[in-house]
Amino acid sequence: MMNPVEIIRKKRDGGILSKDEMEYLISGYVRGEIPEYQISSFLMATYFRGMNAEETVEFTNLMLNSGQVINLSSINGKKVDKHSTGGVGDKISLPLAPIVASCGVPVPMISGRGLGHTGGTLDKLESIPGFRTDLSVDEYTSAIKKTGVVMIGQTESIAPADKKMYALRDVTGTIECIPLIAGSIMSKKLAEGIDSLVLDIKTGRGAFMQTKEKAEELATALVTIGWKFNKPTIGFITNMDEPLGYAIGNWNEVVESIECLRGKAIPDVVDLTLTLGGAMVMLGGKASTIQEGYDICKESLSSGKAYDKFIEMVREQGGDTTYIENVELYPRSTYSIEVKSGHNGFITAIDSLELGFTSIVLGAGRMKVEDTIDPKAGITIRKKIGDRVSINDVLAVFTTDQETALSSASERILNSFSISSSPPSEKTLIYSIVDNGGIHDFHI
Amino acid sequence: MMNPVEIIRKKRDGGILSKDEMEYLISGYVRGEIPEYQISSFLMATYFRGMNAEETVEFTNLMLNSGQVINLSSINGKKVDKHSTGGVGDKISLPLAPIVASCGVPVPMISGRGLGHTGGTLDKLESIPGFRTDLSVDEYTSAIKKTGVVMIGQTESIAPADKKMYALRDVTGTIECIPLIAGSIMSKKLAEGIDSLVLDIKTGRGAFMQTKEKAEELATALVTIGWKFNKPTIGFITNMDEPLGYAIGNWNEVVESIECLRGKAIPDVVDLTLTLGGAMVMLGGKASTIQEGYDICKESLSSGKAYDKFIEMVREQGGDTTYIENVELYPRSTYSIEVKSGHNGFITAIDSLELGFTSIVLGAGRMKVEDTIDPKAGITIRKKIGDRVSINDVLAVFTTDQETALSSASERILNSFSISSSPPSEKTLIYSIVDNGGIHDFHI
Repeated sequence: MMNPVEIIRKKRDGGILSKDEMEYLISGYVRGEIPEYQISSFLMATYFRGMNAEETVEFTNLMLNSGQVINLSSINGKKVDKHSTGGVGDKISLPLAPIVASCGVPVPMISGRGLGHTGGTLDKLESIPGFRTDLSVDEYTSAIKKTGVVMIGQTESIAPADKKMYALRDVTGTIECIPLIAGSIMSKKLAEGIDSLVLDIKTGRGAFMQTKEKAEELATALVTIGWKFNKPTIGFITNMDEPLGYAIGNWNEVVESIECLRGKAIPDVVDLTLTLGGAMVMLGGKASTIQEGYDICKESLSSGKAYDKFIEMVREQGGDTTYIENVELYPRSTYSIEVKSGHNGFITAIDSLELGFTSIVLGAGRMKVEDTIDPKAGITIRKKIGDRVSINDVLAVFTTDQETALSSASERILNSFSISSSPPSEKTLIYSIVDNGGIHDFHI
Repeated sequence: MMNPVEIIRKKRDGGILSKDEMEYLISGYVRGEIPEYQISSFLMATYFRGMNAEETVEFTNLMLNSGQVINLSSINGKKVDKHSTGGVGDKISLPLAPIVASCGVPVPMISGRGLGHTGGTLDKLESIPGFRTDLSVDEYTSAIKKTGVVMIGQTESIAPADKKMYALRDVTGTIECIPLIAGSIMSKKLAEGIDSLVLDIKTGRGAFMQTKEKAEELATALVTIGWKFNKPTIGFITNMDEPLGYAIGNWNEVVESIECLRGKAIPDVVDLTLTLGGAMVMLGGKASTIQEGYDICKESLSSGKAYDKFIEMVREQGGDTTYIENVELYPRSTYSIEVKSGHNGFITAIDSLELGFTSIVLGAGRMKVEDTIDPKAGITIRKKIGDRVSINDVLAVFTTDQETALSSASERILNSFSISSSPPSEKTLIYSIVDNGGIHDFHI
């Protein structure tokens, strides 16, 4: 007969829990037999003591098997998805999924909403008039069968235990715990019906993992879980010290994604997309190296095939492609304000965390769960780290319907740019790659 | 506007909570406004991060002021109590309280029941037919006014927050946390109406604090709280490697206490009682040093005044003194079994933890809260550490009505004695003394 207090004490004292003990505690909680106050002290003990690989896998397994695990085995090919830990201006999923699908690798993607200072892929997609992210599992399966790509939101049937556990962590100060984060992410991804996974673990000022060490620790936990479930998984540790690309917000990030798919050179967005895409194409069995996958994705992008796949996906999910083809038809915000430099020099830093929070105030994100998003609102930066600026050069433009936000937003955005007389050292976009063999430097 | 999650995270990350933050969280919980799952993760964070002296004092203060603080200022003299962290065979309160009261220092004592492997003073007192431990606060006050000594149980009106908090700690693996233990003990003691306090912090195999370091840490926390509340407090770190005296159980511990009060030489019981009593008499203003207090107590014991005070207290609280005067009239257990040595040699260790747990199986304690105690059941050891034994010498006698317990109890008790061919090194009864100046060696 197991005793929850004994299991909590074992974890508290640094012990390793058996599969049976994990199952007793976690599944007991999900079934409502173990009270919240015991799980919350267990979660805090886990915050301090961590979990080893076996415990983390079992935790993930229990979350995963609390709900439906979608079976996509009727669809030919290896299904590959990407997950990002979230950043500012991170619209990569939007160009990436159609690029990879256009290379013959099916991409079944279940995405989330904005969290904290970061935007969410779902919120971005929903800024496209008519676009449905709430497909049923049957619609999801038939969409990917038809177009090779689908992008939807979390369904109630997937990993309900994770939802319950996350809500409890949120109110008990136990969010920031690597094995719990890893289990939460992977339980949802493994339920999608994927064969392989590519991870973008962001680090830096605008990321949840502010240090490279923490990012590597999370990446290692995630990659380990993937392989233990026989889903080859590769992670990239990437730079989130400045926003990705130029656009922050929902519709303006869709527009930047469209520009990318139409061949516009947006260095960091294109590079990161092709790298992640290269790994996905390799894992999907259509290339033997990431470099080869990168080249295949690049070709698909420049040929227009990837853009066509995006249009096909938008249409399949009910989106009005008129706005994709003619982005200028989209409604405009009441206010469009330029923020200008007061100095001459070089941009040495851009506080993406602050820009993320400012975009929420403009209407691009939620301050409370029940808030609605203004898809038009956002910030478009005009300068990136390393750029030279002169006094009165426009650093950024922001759009909003919120008159009361104007002056503080101007000030916050201006203060987000650090300008110095000497140029900064060169930036690195991708720090390292994490696979089942460990952490390695990465260059393409 | 305070946020419980922020306070939990602050403690989790090693921060020091303000008085307002402690009050918001703890009093909010007591009022039912902060849910259990937040307090339990806070308690686990506190387990890992601890509390500083100010936080511990504030925690104690919030527990204390959640209920009635008894006012004994109408009674002349400095009221002094003793608290022990609990041990096996620890009947010290029974001879101690009347000894100190007979020296003119009022002793208002609120005691607890058995906990874990240790017995409780209340359970021992209640083995005296008719003895009432459930006096009202008015009866308590008038008893101490009349006889100078009273020994009762926790009332509902004292520190109700501690009761609620302790129950939550018990089911969330957060009992073993020094500041929480210290706050729990001191909030109840400070509510008794005392002016000063003497603490007996036990360490060793049969104690809750198994190492001297942990015992000293707890003693320091307790003594610090006492002085912060302007109640001069002295702690003694004492040896609990073997049972105190010879008797373990309820009525047999009362009998051993009576023997002590009648002048029988039971070295450790008498020594510890006179030392704690000496400190109490000093704190009560009737001696200028512990040594002088010790001598005064010794005189009171040998003169019979202390025994008379015990009889007076028993009578005042409704107890039948016939059994005190004639202990042989008390009912006897069905079984009385001798446990004999299988070796020649010296006793080098006695596993008091194991003896404590075995006495519970015999009926002397509770396995579940709702269990009733058999006052006749218990163990009387016949040998102490350092004693020489021969094969077939009686090591202990146990008494019980539980036929099914006989064979396992015999074996467990036998295995509790370690016998070696060479004598053990000399034992120390009192390791050190802790006062507001720190920890010092102690010799009398």
